[in-house]
Amino acid sequence: MPMIESRLTDLGLILPATLQPPPGVVLPFPMVNLRGSRAIVSGHGPLEADGSLAYPRGKVGAEVSVEDARLLARKTALAILSSLKAELGDLDRITGWVKVLGMVNSAPGFNRQPEVINGFSEVILDLFGPGIGRHARSAVGMAALPFDIAVEIEAEVEIAS
Amino acid sequence: MPMIESRLTDLGLILPATLQPPPGVVLPFPMVNLRGSRAIVSGHGPLEADGSLAYPRGKVGAEVSVEDARLLARKTALAILSSLKAELGDLDRITGWVKVLGMVNSAPGFNRQPEVINGFSEVILDLFGPGIGRHARSAVGMAALPFDIAVEIEAEVEIAS
Amino acid sequence: MPMIESRLTDLGLILPATLQPPPGVVLPFPMVNLRGSRAIVSGHGPLEADGSLAYPRGKVGAEVSVEDARLLARKTALAILSSLKAELGDLDRITGWVKVLGMVNSAPGFNRQPEVINGFSEVILDLFGPGIGRHARSAVGMAALPFDIAVEIEAEVEIAS
Repeated sequence: MPMIESRLTDLGLILPATLQPPPGVVLPFPMVNLRGSRAIVSGHGPLEADGSLAYPRGKVGAEVSVEDARLLARKTALAILSSLKAELGDLDRITGWVKVLGMVNSAPGFNRQPEVINGFSEVILDLFGPGIGRHARSAVGMAALPFDIAVEIEAEVEIAS
Repeated sequence: MPMIESRLTDLGLILPATLQPPPGVVLPFPMVNLRGSRAIVSGHGPLEADGSLAYPRGKVGAEVSVEDARLLARKTALAILSSLKAELGDLDRITGWVKVLGMVNSAPGFNRQPEVINGFSEVILDLFGPGIGRHARSAVGMAALPFDIAVEIEAEVEIAS
Repeated sequence: MPMIESRLTDLGLILPATLQPPPGVVLPFPMVNLRGSRAIVSGHGPLEADGSLAYPRGKVGAEVSVEDARLLARKTALAILSSLKAELGDLDRITGWVKVLGMVNSAPGFNRQPEVINGFSEVILDLFGPGIGRHARSAVGMAALPFDIAVEIEAEVEIAS
């Protein structure tokens, strides 16, 4: 079994199906764009096991608690890994995480975005370790996100060329 | 006639003049930064034919309709192509679209950002096709944009080295 | 004395200590992620000399004036340079600025983000000149930023490989 898949199993983590957009929604772009040794990851939201966008939805600090948002950021990590596996075939091809932009749908006055996005970073570091998993990061507050999701994350990874 | 220019003509699309900043505004950066084989595209707003920032302005979902915003996203694609042509000389030098960040000036409760930014993606795919035109994308809701423009888009493309 | 350090001295600029996160805050990522010839700079806020997050905090256009925000953007440039020096050892290793995303914590109706982020761009251009210092840029309005900082900036630079 490949290494990262094995670690997923050890940690009790299961990748969701790849994104099933809401009915009638057209998304004319790939969830991962592979260009040479760079794999650019489109903005992902958290997914349920069947690939539908997860709940709760809404603004963190109002409709969504920090703890729930942190779990949604964990689910967003798994959603991104599901897209990367679909594109790359094998997550072990990832030789380095490059950067992560963590966007939190933020209620007025909510400024604990880093705690939320830590849910994402922890999954990546648990799976890939501090060398490959190391990533530059910003975690910021958005006025709105598509479909009122609470968290959206985009990223870039390097793969063996 | 170069291929992309020819397709622009076929589609009845005309590139605007490059950005003319509002009076008194200093923008101490290039609209495209060429570094090796990477052309990084600064945040662009939609332009009128003369290079001035287009109208309508304001928040999508309130002062600006989704359909108008989608047209503004199309105009933003043409603005970016105008900047790329000025920098590269020839749009056929673009060998791959890499990533796109679509930022929508969003009224409270507006969460249809992907529909808006689809206006941009459609222009790129119509012109460059699914191979070269393929791009990773995020489409998100901003609290505010410069000069109260409704849409701002930044991007990266690869060019032949 | 290395060239950029010498220019810092000539300009009377002093780098702050690297970021000291607020008590109890865990940031599980590096402030600069070096991958090959790319140095990706995580989102930085403005720092005091001791590395603590600077004041004033809050929304630009309400609690924070444009002029204060511009000074905070200058301080953010120095904070980023401090992180780059810690990671690279020598700022002269930077061979080109690539891109900058300037995020301004924006009060309703505030749309002068470019003026604010010009504070950042001017420091970079003063130190590195128009060739190495040239950067693609977006300057946009966020709903919220961590710890209620007024400005956050992420970036990418190239280094000699």
